[in-house]
Amino acid sequence: MATKPAPRLLTLAAAQMGPNQLADTRESILTRMLTLLNTAASQGAKLVVFPELALTTFFPRWQIDDPVKKAEFFEPESHDDPHAITKSPRVKVLFDRATELGVDLYLGYAERWTDKQGQVTDYNATLYYSGKEARVVSKYRKVHLPGTKEPIEDQTGRGVEQQLEKRYFTPGDLGFQAFRAPGLVDGALTASDAAGKDPKELEGKGDPIVGMVICNDRRWAEAWRCYGLQGAELILDGYNTTAYAPQYDGTREEQEAEALFHHRLSCQSGSYTNACFSVNVAKCGIEDGGSLIAGSIIYDPDGHVVAESKTKEDECIVVTVDLAKCRRGKERVFAFEKHRRTEHYQRLIEQKGVVEPPLLG
Amino acid sequence: MATKPAPRLLTLAAAQMGPNQLADTRESILTRMLTLLNTAASQGAKLVVFPELALTTFFPRWQIDDPVKKAEFFEPESHDDPHAITKSPRVKVLFDRATELGVDLYLGYAERWTDKQGQVTDYNATLYYSGKEARVVSKYRKVHLPGTKEPIEDQTGRGVEQQLEKRYFTPGDLGFQAFRAPGLVDGALTASDAAGKDPKELEGKGDPIVGMVICNDRRWAEAWRCYGLQGAELILDGYNTTAYAPQYDGTREEQEAEALFHHRLSCQSGSYTNACFSVNVAKCGIEDGGSLIAGSIIYDPDGHVVAESKTKEDECIVVTVDLAKCRRGKERVFAFEKHRRTEHYQRLIEQKGVVEPPLLG
Repeated sequence: MATKPAPRLLTLAAAQMGPNQLADTRESILTRMLTLLNTAASQGAKLVVFPELALTTFFPRWQIDDPVKKAEFFEPESHDDPHAITKSPRVKVLFDRATELGVDLYLGYAERWTDKQGQVTDYNATLYYSGKEARVVSKYRKVHLPGTKEPIEDQTGRGVEQQLEKRYFTPGDLGFQAFRAPGLVDGALTASDAAGKDPKELEGKGDPIVGMVICNDRRWAEAWRCYGLQGAELILDGYNTTAYAPQYDGTREEQEAEALFHHRLSCQSGSYTNACFSVNVAKCGIEDGGSLIAGSIIYDPDGHVVAESKTKEDECIVVTVDLAKCRRGKERVFAFEKHRRTEHYQRLIEQKGVVEPPLLG
Repeated sequence: MATKPAPRLLTLAAAQMGPNQLADTRESILTRMLTLLNTAASQGAKLVVFPELALTTFFPRWQIDDPVKKAEFFEPESHDDPHAITKSPRVKVLFDRATELGVDLYLGYAERWTDKQGQVTDYNATLYYSGKEARVVSKYRKVHLPGTKEPIEDQTGRGVEQQLEKRYFTPGDLGFQAFRAPGLVDGALTASDAAGKDPKELEGKGDPIVGMVICNDRRWAEAWRCYGLQGAELILDGYNTTAYAPQYDGTREEQEAEALFHHRLSCQSGSYTNACFSVNVAKCGIEDGGSLIAGSIIYDPDGHVVAESKTKEDECIVVTVDLAKCRRGKERVFAFEKHRRTEHYQRLIEQKGVVEPPLLG
């Protein structure tokens, strides 16, 4: 058996947010986020994970056709200025503070992207900002958009909330690109240490390998595995998940319990089967009449709970994890090189939807 | 919202087995299996699921090099007689009884296969036998073989059991082929009903769609999804899983709890994320000095427990499930055609092992 790997300690924070009401000013939302950021930093956090669509209400619960009203929910970015959000007066204060503190950020937001040809596309996005290096290290655009383009007629009589992400957003075009978070743990090997070494020997010893997903992505094993195949040690996941799931039977309380159960199950199995930590962070509570689950949770590479939120409000959960704990799973049960049989996985990409076997006679 | 689909009721049994000691005669093992089969049938079961390597002890815990001793664990089959096991005097009584009862079987066994060229290959296999039609409907050969080819030196001083499946077996060559179980539920649409109909309308209305995995396969989301993409409603999974996992810290009791936790987590998330039932069946207890977990369990398409074994011995769990309950998940959260983004999944098949992002400077 290999000797126990050297610890790779990281203190990080899940910055759960209570609801952002439509009536809330951006300033008041940023003030709350700064409080969370400062609290996290004061407890030693080097990375703070905010939720999906952290700057606004979860507007895809409504059909909004007025382009002016709609634009208010989006942050403009472009080919000329791909990380404009960090300089926008509507958000800048957050990044400035993160830089002062030397703290990294995951921040979910609605991105209005203008490409080289002037074509505008809206994404449900997130970015990873390095406070130490004062720059955006990576951007991710949500791949698995849930819900529908058109509102579903409510046949339940219980005032179903809509889930219109497919109306507002285009599926992400950046895929699942893991990246290294510069300087996030002490003692990481650098490129110059690698000269002449077998890459296998260097695994799990460089700057931490991070993957980002958003909300519904966490239910898709494909997303987790794409990151697992890049050696991800840490998956960051912000979400806004309705607590009112009319497709499930039962009372609203039972539906919320079911939504929490599926949230946890997805994150837990993704963490275990890819031998990585995951930090899953909610925007939660009653937001503009819609009920969002809380349950912000951090899992370890064995699928065990490291910490979980206790409220449905702004709440900062700070933990210290040892990324070296990923090695055991990555080198044994989920040593992909030894155990995966890609020759039998063609269907995963050759086929998008279901193809049933032929009916029998 | 679609109208509630018509029920598709199926009574089935998980036939958990206690240990098969090396000293046990084949006759005594078959007698126990017949008792389980008869018990299940007397309670109305139409399908009985036995464990992995149901006919023998879990011999990959030892290194056995004597070819004569080794051969005793295997059932010979060949290109000329691909389902020889059903006629073998060492097993036949089981299939004969299943035919009399009109009950279907999942049966795990070690297969010694001779191909057209006389080449012999050993597989960890299972088959699906239709009692009504008195024939093998499908065979599956374990794809994800755990463990090692060579024994691992025991550095724990606690008498670690070996897991030498990679020494004894070749990874399965049949992939993950779902199939329809003929006549397993009443009122299934037939091929002639399908004439001129949109295949989408027929989904979930024919004979039940079944997928088979064996033990360690259940930890691999790829296997579940390959079946999910064929509309599987029922995954059958026999296992022999060591309760003594020296890679986990803690007492033997804690290690067993951990092994059970990971077993359940894998089956639960596979069932939920593919909106199918799964029937997971153990060979368990202290077998030739090795401790195997029990925890035979049936999950529904929402990931909830339908039933679970209570002992570490022969135990027959009979339940009636409604396969129509798969429709909700398959048509909403896990409607693959609507939500999957295969253009971002290339890595799943282009890459077998981990490729880390380059080290930073």
